[in-house]
Amino acid sequence: MSERIYATYWLETGDDPRRAADTIAGEQSSGTFVALPTETPELKARSGARVERLEILDTSDEPHLAGGFASNRYTRCTLELSWPIENFGPSLPNLMSTIAGNLFELRQVSGLRLTGLKLPPSFAAAYPGPAFGIEGTRRLSGVTHGPLIGTIIKPSVGLSAEQTAQQVRELVEGGIDFIKDDELQADGSHCPFDERVKAVMRVVNEHAERTGKKVMVAFNLTGDLDQMRRRHDLVLEHGGTCVMAVLNSVGLVGLHELRRHSQLPIHAHRAGWGYLTRSEGLGWDYAPWQMLWRLAGADHMHVNGLRNKFSESDDSVIASARAVLAPVMPEAPMTAMPVFSSGQTGLQAADTYAAIGRADLIHTAGGGIFGHPQGVAAGVEALREAWVAAIEGVPLERHAVRHASLRAALGFWK
Amino acid sequence: MSERIYATYWLETGDDPRRAADTIAGEQSSGTFVALPTETPELKARSGARVERLEILDTSDEPHLAGGFASNRYTRCTLELSWPIENFGPSLPNLMSTIAGNLFELRQVSGLRLTGLKLPPSFAAAYPGPAFGIEGTRRLSGVTHGPLIGTIIKPSVGLSAEQTAQQVRELVEGGIDFIKDDELQADGSHCPFDERVKAVMRVVNEHAERTGKKVMVAFNLTGDLDQMRRRHDLVLEHGGTCVMAVLNSVGLVGLHELRRHSQLPIHAHRAGWGYLTRSEGLGWDYAPWQMLWRLAGADHMHVNGLRNKFSESDDSVIASARAVLAPVMPEAPMTAMPVFSSGQTGLQAADTYAAIGRADLIHTAGGGIFGHPQGVAAGVEALREAWVAAIEGVPLERHAVRHASLRAALGFWK
Repeated sequence: MSERIYATYWLETGDDPRRAADTIAGEQSSGTFVALPTETPELKARSGARVERLEILDTSDEPHLAGGFASNRYTRCTLELSWPIENFGPSLPNLMSTIAGNLFELRQVSGLRLTGLKLPPSFAAAYPGPAFGIEGTRRLSGVTHGPLIGTIIKPSVGLSAEQTAQQVRELVEGGIDFIKDDELQADGSHCPFDERVKAVMRVVNEHAERTGKKVMVAFNLTGDLDQMRRRHDLVLEHGGTCVMAVLNSVGLVGLHELRRHSQLPIHAHRAGWGYLTRSEGLGWDYAPWQMLWRLAGADHMHVNGLRNKFSESDDSVIASARAVLAPVMPEAPMTAMPVFSSGQTGLQAADTYAAIGRADLIHTAGGGIFGHPQGVAAGVEALREAWVAAIEGVPLERHAVRHASLRAALGFWK
Repeated sequence: MSERIYATYWLETGDDPRRAADTIAGEQSSGTFVALPTETPELKARSGARVERLEILDTSDEPHLAGGFASNRYTRCTLELSWPIENFGPSLPNLMSTIAGNLFELRQVSGLRLTGLKLPPSFAAAYPGPAFGIEGTRRLSGVTHGPLIGTIIKPSVGLSAEQTAQQVRELVEGGIDFIKDDELQADGSHCPFDERVKAVMRVVNEHAERTGKKVMVAFNLTGDLDQMRRRHDLVLEHGGTCVMAVLNSVGLVGLHELRRHSQLPIHAHRAGWGYLTRSEGLGWDYAPWQMLWRLAGADHMHVNGLRNKFSESDDSVIASARAVLAPVMPEAPMTAMPVFSSGQTGLQAADTYAAIGRADLIHTAGGGIFGHPQGVAAGVEALREAWVAAIEGVPLERHAVRHASLRAALGFWK
């Protein structure tokens, strides 16, 4: 039996659903718009995509997307296709062309969204997956249980290297576990990457020497390949323990090459995710998307946060986090650490823990830490204690009785 | 005066448009959801994105996208933002994070689409652009004027290397200028890349030695970076004159690295473009998108075709082709060759020529060539003669009087 790749879609079509499914399967394998004498039955059996499942969900009078066949009724269905691995081999870029290629613009399609992906073991043999994942991140950060309490340097862009280091000093002295650059902060002339790394790592290293705790800082090295490699080496040389890359900006080849070179965990940012996902009937669910990047080597994957400041629902956030914590495949879990952010405070700890059933995550807060009336250290402590309460199943208010910083935080978290 | 980057958006918002514009500008530069004491007026003046233009277009009762602020009225506008180059330097990946980052999921946004991009000269100094473009493609293919007449090997996937070479033989003997792999055909075990290149180039080289015409074949080398480099070298070694990569599958870093390595024109495929563009109020117009890839080195850019088999309108196809032929910037034209495909025959030649005013393009047809009752050679000739007629401004029917192959083609093109 040949290995096969399985992809699941939400499909809306003004055409007969079975015909639409066959068209999609054909278009993404041996078929084309017209019948070809060279597409023999043998060739089709060998290389054709197969419709594995087609389940009607409901119908609509209006198409989700314009431009397709006009119809009185648009049928929504769950479609599962499969491809033999022989069509393109265990190659992430060619997998991408196949499962998410020239499909979305088909006229038979008035809505198409990739919702699931199942890969055969040969992909795990071809790609390394995260080099550090949860276990390596815990080891490097010294956080053996509970979430890494983190934050993002703000303003996103505009601080000098020294100003950044000053903010880092306040944070590391406040007991933070994890700090990241904003995704807009890379190598601008007001805050060059090299100067920032040197200034920040001076602070981080001094603190580590004094206390034994080395705070993990994700330096955004997003750039061309040579730049990323050189920046990685600089971070490593200065004792840093994490680098960050924006996935949509570097692409699959960029991340894969960074992974091959890197000796540090890769904090993967999903900036641009909105244009891939926000139209409900087009594009990508997070589950299949994040799988590609984990195979390519992402150690930490952003999933937004519960009750976030963006338009994403809590259900979607939870599904994303669960996807990141689920094995890529039984033979190769390649588990990565989900990163929660956006409008986060200790108030989301219990619900987050309840939703995913574990605390192998990075929880980043900005205002939730910096806004604490007793300062940054109290803000970090309050968020950490909120997680202790969540894990122990104790209501926040009760836990706050014994923890002054949490008590004070409950007055301003909202 | 510092250099600035300008991006234009179609924006729909349930909020006050000015406030929404300021939020977007803030989110993509120094601001965040809450006011920060460290975001000083000086820092904001230096690093903040600027709202250059905000023009109300119309309003709607319903939001284009779900999940944003509820409102009675959604205002659509043209929004232009600008950023100082100092924020991130002339870096394509970081440009991507900035102009198309965490924007589309903002709650203030019920629709957001990137419609235009203007870059300063430092980008042209940092990136090479196409190494061959129109002029180099004409030189290598020997087609000094008029379009390159091309086709795609079909079935997309499933033919063996030898079967592919047989199809190539028929095409080169038929006088074709350009042949491309399908984007699904890369290095599958039924048609390994190396075997395909060797078998196909044997045919192409024999024909070139006999006739002096070397047909350009775009071999799809999409893959991991080492694979792409190695495959490029193989194509070069066997006398090939073009390689092909799927942009969304390799990413900006992948294309940039391929460009740095390549000694051949890069035929850039846009598979997956549908999920970036098909929701009218979300994602990307082609004009800004293609600019990034030309800077990174794409020589040929796909633009679909007039009266194509997909859901894209002719207006959109024409706008895309014009964008590919327009200079990236006055100081650095970096002109690439647009590639027309999908349901193409000679019937689209005149309208295509009228719409873009020149014939510096690749026109690929499948059924329009293979379906010719007198065979492939007549199919190629008919398409070429249709272009002669288009350029000379002669109606097809009149031109067909003197050209039997065109006359016969008019009977089956539709």
